[in-house]
Amino acid sequence: MVELQAQSCEACKIDAPRLTDTEITNLISEINDWDLIQEPVKQIKKIFSFPDYQSGVNFLNAVATMADQEDHHPELVLEWGKVTVIWWSHKIKGLHKNDFICASKTDNLYQN
Amino acid sequence: MVELQAQSCEACKIDAPRLTDTEITNLISEINDWDLIQEPVKQIKKIFSFPDYQSGVNFLNAVATMADQEDHHPELVLEWGKVTVIWWSHKIKGLHKNDFICASKTDNLYQN
Repeated sequence: MVELQAQSCEACKIDAPRLTDTEITNLISEINDWDLIQEPVKQIKKIFSFPDYQSGVNFLNAVATMADQEDHHPELVLEWGKVTVIWWSHKIKGLHKNDFICASKTDNLYQN
Repeated sequence: MVELQAQSCEACKIDAPRLTDTEITNLISEINDWDLIQEPVKQIKKIFSFPDYQSGVNFLNAVATMADQEDHHPELVLEWGKVTVIWWSHKIKGLHKNDFICASKTDNLYQN
């Protein structure tokens, strides 16, 4: 199995199928502690903590740079000491494998 | 009258009084198109638009730098083409003059 973080996002067209619940269950087991949001569309969300403001800013910038490279852009919420990351695929109003690839890369950026 | 953007945040202690509704009405008239949020605590919120992702990232960083200089940290939400900025004073669970000073500085950063 090729690890998610080693993969790249593929172009997600508006008619691409959303992941099934079984596919989501399998993929979410490959990433660490992301919450599955059901409404208004399926999303995956995780809160990352930091000891100071600048560390959170640096992490947000690292995720934003990765996101732009993948041409897949999450919602990023910066507050003092924490960054909330939410991935979903706007074009299909739900979850695509791309979201799990990017979640895995996000975890990797936090570890580094 | 000293313009808001020319002022600096003062230390906001936990027993500092929240602004009254009249004070909020007066101060919100000095800033451009910020929405007053009532729940769960009073906040002021504005969405800034951008033609591309990197411009939004740059603006978020400029606001974050200003916020850290003022030692007053907003909620900043980055999405493709937009940044949402929400100011309030955590310690008093509501609005303080500091929030309007920082909102004015935020507008100034957007114009520049």
